[in-house]
Amino acid sequence: MKNSLAFSHQLIEEVIAPGDTVLDGTAGNGHDTLFLAQLVGSRGCVYAFDLQEKAITHTKMLLEAHGAASQVHLFQRSHAELGQVIAPDSPIKGALFNLGYLPGGDKTIITKKESTLTAIRAVLTRLARGGRCVIVLYWGHPGGKEEKEAVLAFAAALPQAHYQAAVYQFINQRHTPPLLLCIEKIAKK
Amino acid sequence: MKNSLAFSHQLIEEVIAPGDTVLDGTAGNGHDTLFLAQLVGSRGCVYAFDLQEKAITHTKMLLEAHGAASQVHLFQRSHAELGQVIAPDSPIKGALFNLGYLPGGDKTIITKKESTLTAIRAVLTRLARGGRCVIVLYWGHPGGKEEKEAVLAFAAALPQAHYQAAVYQFINQRHTPPLLLCIEKIAKK
Repeated sequence: MKNSLAFSHQLIEEVIAPGDTVLDGTAGNGHDTLFLAQLVGSRGCVYAFDLQEKAITHTKMLLEAHGAASQVHLFQRSHAELGQVIAPDSPIKGALFNLGYLPGGDKTIITKKESTLTAIRAVLTRLARGGRCVIVLYWGHPGGKEEKEAVLAFAAALPQAHYQAAVYQFINQRHTPPLLLCIEKIAKK
Repeated sequence: MKNSLAFSHQLIEEVIAPGDTVLDGTAGNGHDTLFLAQLVGSRGCVYAFDLQEKAITHTKMLLEAHGAASQVHLFQRSHAELGQVIAPDSPIKGALFNLGYLPGGDKTIITKKESTLTAIRAVLTRLARGGRCVIVLYWGHPGGKEEKEAVLAFAAALPQAHYQAAVYQFINQRHTPPLLLCIEKIAKK
């Protein structure tokens, strides 16, 4: 069965076409940024954020190695500030977030619920109809449960006339596998 | 975003090939039985169960109208008795259940947690490695919550060395949309 990461890519692929504008809220090792850059192609646009200089450098190198750097705008700042970078009337077709810690990275560097919710709200304001905000949420670290509960409470309160919010998760694992949350802005009927 | 019913079909399609043996635990209006019969083809085998005579008649007519009756064995008995019909050493590649009530049907005719769990246990005993038992669980009726909780508790306790159990559900809807549960028997490594 697909894990949350693989399923997050499927959910993004289903709605993205070449030329679209998308967002990577947590560039990290750059793999998701590259995935998005290849999906939207050279006519598309990817906004990618990460607070850490190392992440930005890695992501840039990975993109250049794959000839996919030209369509990506990298920002070394918090995703909570994405509203200061992307105009409110600039429609985003898809957004990807890996929340919690970076798997394989420093587990003391974690995302926090306040900046996470600020970022998600800013994405939803800009999300195109039929677009998706897809979140892979790692929560097996101190503070992880609080962030998970805050994000789920926010999503569960979204008006169903405008958004669909769905959760996918494994339920029989001893460790805490990441949870997948997908928020879709409903297309006009 | 796919609803639980559409996603249940995707999860079955991903593991079923022509010639496979599959099971429909709740024939109902016959749509899932037909879907399974078309997936496995004339060389395959579908076991389908329903307590109600009307369901069996409808399903039979639907299958015949689509020229897909020859590969289906219809049983007018409870899915709890599937262990009496299918040999323990007969590997099932996929199973579909719609639990709760039949949408559009009589809401007083519901599945119950005891027979549901008996049926799921009998399926898992016969499930081929890499095979999936996919359950769409309607629970917005009296007794529905108890059945849901019993099924989820059972799935959450499955040993992760042998099974993966994942849940998919919408979380921002006022009504109670069906929950999707998928149990996969892990292929030998």
